[in-house]
Amino acid sequence: MASVPTVVLISQGDEVITGQTLDTNAQWLAERLTELGLSVVRKITVGDRLNDIVDAIRQGTALADVVISTGGLGPTVDDLTAEAAAAVLGGPMRLDEEALAFIEALFARYGRTMNDANRKQAVLPASSTTLMNQWGTAPGFSIEHQGAVAFFVPGVPREMRAFWAHHIQPELVRRLSLTPGRLITFRCMGIPESHLEELMRPFNAIDGAVLGFRTKLPENQVKLRVDPDFPEDRLDALVADIRSTIGKGLFGVNCGPIEEVIGQALTERGETIATAESCTGGQISATLTAIAGSSNYFIEGACVYANAAKVRTCGVSEGTLAAHGAVSEPTAREMAEGIRARAGTTYGLSSTGIAGPGGGSAEKPVGTVHIALATPNGTHHKRLRLGGDRERITRLATGGALDMLRRHLQGLLRT
Amino acid sequence: MASVPTVVLISQGDEVITGQTLDTNAQWLAERLTELGLSVVRKITVGDRLNDIVDAIRQGTALADVVISTGGLGPTVDDLTAEAAAAVLGGPMRLDEEALAFIEALFARYGRTMNDANRKQAVLPASSTTLMNQWGTAPGFSIEHQGAVAFFVPGVPREMRAFWAHHIQPELVRRLSLTPGRLITFRCMGIPESHLEELMRPFNAIDGAVLGFRTKLPENQVKLRVDPDFPEDRLDALVADIRSTIGKGLFGVNCGPIEEVIGQALTERGETIATAESCTGGQISATLTAIAGSSNYFIEGACVYANAAKVRTCGVSEGTLAAHGAVSEPTAREMAEGIRARAGTTYGLSSTGIAGPGGGSAEKPVGTVHIALATPNGTHHKRLRLGGDRERITRLATGGALDMLRRHLQGLLRT
Repeated sequence: MASVPTVVLISQGDEVITGQTLDTNAQWLAERLTELGLSVVRKITVGDRLNDIVDAIRQGTALADVVISTGGLGPTVDDLTAEAAAAVLGGPMRLDEEALAFIEALFARYGRTMNDANRKQAVLPASSTTLMNQWGTAPGFSIEHQGAVAFFVPGVPREMRAFWAHHIQPELVRRLSLTPGRLITFRCMGIPESHLEELMRPFNAIDGAVLGFRTKLPENQVKLRVDPDFPEDRLDALVADIRSTIGKGLFGVNCGPIEEVIGQALTERGETIATAESCTGGQISATLTAIAGSSNYFIEGACVYANAAKVRTCGVSEGTLAAHGAVSEPTAREMAEGIRARAGTTYGLSSTGIAGPGGGSAEKPVGTVHIALATPNGTHHKRLRLGGDRERITRLATGGALDMLRRHLQGLLRT
Repeated sequence: MASVPTVVLISQGDEVITGQTLDTNAQWLAERLTELGLSVVRKITVGDRLNDIVDAIRQGTALADVVISTGGLGPTVDDLTAEAAAAVLGGPMRLDEEALAFIEALFARYGRTMNDANRKQAVLPASSTTLMNQWGTAPGFSIEHQGAVAFFVPGVPREMRAFWAHHIQPELVRRLSLTPGRLITFRCMGIPESHLEELMRPFNAIDGAVLGFRTKLPENQVKLRVDPDFPEDRLDALVADIRSTIGKGLFGVNCGPIEEVIGQALTERGETIATAESCTGGQISATLTAIAGSSNYFIEGACVYANAAKVRTCGVSEGTLAAHGAVSEPTAREMAEGIRARAGTTYGLSSTGIAGPGGGSAEKPVGTVHIALATPNGTHHKRLRLGGDRERITRLATGGALDMLRRHLQGLLRT
């Protein structure tokens, strides 16, 4: 770790500095850069003031080997980045004909008329390298200053990410002779972060490997970063060891989100799903259908909030509701079995619980949630006791239900 | 606007600089400070390195009147903020007996034993002012340097917000003789941001009033900030003027989100709602049921993804599906009317569309969405043409459907 290349990130824009917009670009880039083995030493945010942008670029190139600046490349008078970079270089600007032609073609394609402001986007520092934008109008550029390289890319997250993948990352790998280490992400559900960290403690002292953790409710991730020269057979053994240590809570390695893992499994098996939700209010169906192509396996969802709806649409018996209440194991089971029968699907997945803040009792406090999965071979059930506010409880309940389905599809539930 | 006080925000911590954690503190503080009439000129993020923290504090006090730093006050060796502040001041440290007694009492109350690391949290720069922490263990402090005041508070968002409310904001108001102005938020749906900005242009040049914009899809907000001495009758007239200029797109002033406005209206009117969703996959029901107490008016939601489900649960006719397709005005109308009849509710709200990326055609491109609202006096319908990816299209379609219901409840739709 003798000389890790250093990076300064600059975020520009009045909407960011005033807190109107939450800056997610700097975090996203910092994560990618850290994964690539670089060290982010400073993030600087400035508004749309020329002097502040110039100062930030100067400070960045003085402090670090690499500067990445997002925002300030648009057509308005507030977009001053190219001018600021030219000022730092002490040189003139140039009109980039190729970039201009590209912008003109874009406008022609959408039948819009172009004005001087749009043309301005193709005016870049004379000694800069143009980075073509295939994902929007404003081109990016890079400059060399004081031994540092500085990249300037749009602030629209979608465009910024494309610039990272197509321009910045390949250039950094080439320029810094990076042999990117390998990053392996273990994606987990149903394991608290503190427990996961405890499970991973034996792997903390492995030479050439670093573990990190990330929680985005309801999911937890373990990120294993190994040096480029880490032996392949040792890596295979290490990954297998971590897999078995995490156990059933692991839903995949280097995979997509759990709804994608579920979608792939259902597609492969030629199976279908329907949902019956009460406390989660449609979050389970919304999550499952966020995957393109989900119409191939997702047939129907019922958000049966009222008891009458539970009876009408899921065939829950009035007797069950009277004897056990809506938030109970029997109701959850009948909801799952009822929606499965109604929709004629392989599976029926249900949730019923108390999301709060009202509606709790000593016996069934806020956060009590029953989930059930009806399958061709019987019905699974689980009771959850969740903490937090309404939003957290419904989100964790959604995760719990999806994870029950995932565990079944991966053969981890006994039937 | 002669001399608006300036602020530099500093965020500290390896978890922030490496992108492991998204820094929401700086955005939250920037928004509060902007509302208070101060100008944030720089945000600086540094890791847990003493020299970097010292540099950031020096830069902050040199650039601005006020510095607010979050993070780095905990008990671990990585928590270097107090040491860095003392280095900036060039003075020694002191043990704050009151803060220590407070920490000791906390540990005693929870029956935990205290170690030197915990004691370290009460060691602050000699010439600092202690800011007691009633919401956690680590005390904060403030220092004076180069004519600036610098506040150092914990990075835990809940604690940081309490420090803002109880220590920082009152001290800024006192020290800078601020008389906080008033902030009025106009919340809008269905108006593109560029059009909203155009509508608001006549209000840009009003003495003593400043307009701001904020977009969080599918909502747009206009924020009107008026000086403390702005006459009350002029303010009433101005608010009325902005209201009528925005027109039907305004769903409320200083109110909650649209689902709360809808919930209040339904509750007042004693009316009920059921939903039938296709492309939105349950997002409409999940949004409506995010409001506590929604079980009083939300009866049932049907996520009828498959055509068979549309027929089975919403009573859409096979003939309509065959003649017009699932994504059509007749299908949207039959879905809304069908779920209304099934659930016995006052209203039935539906969506059907092509969220993409697949499934589009020349006649019905990706982003085509039909929404309908069945009422006791007839059914409203609207076709939307939405751009963007699957996530954006479904989110805007959800907003469009909720807004149709809101407009009806506010008497803005003709029946």
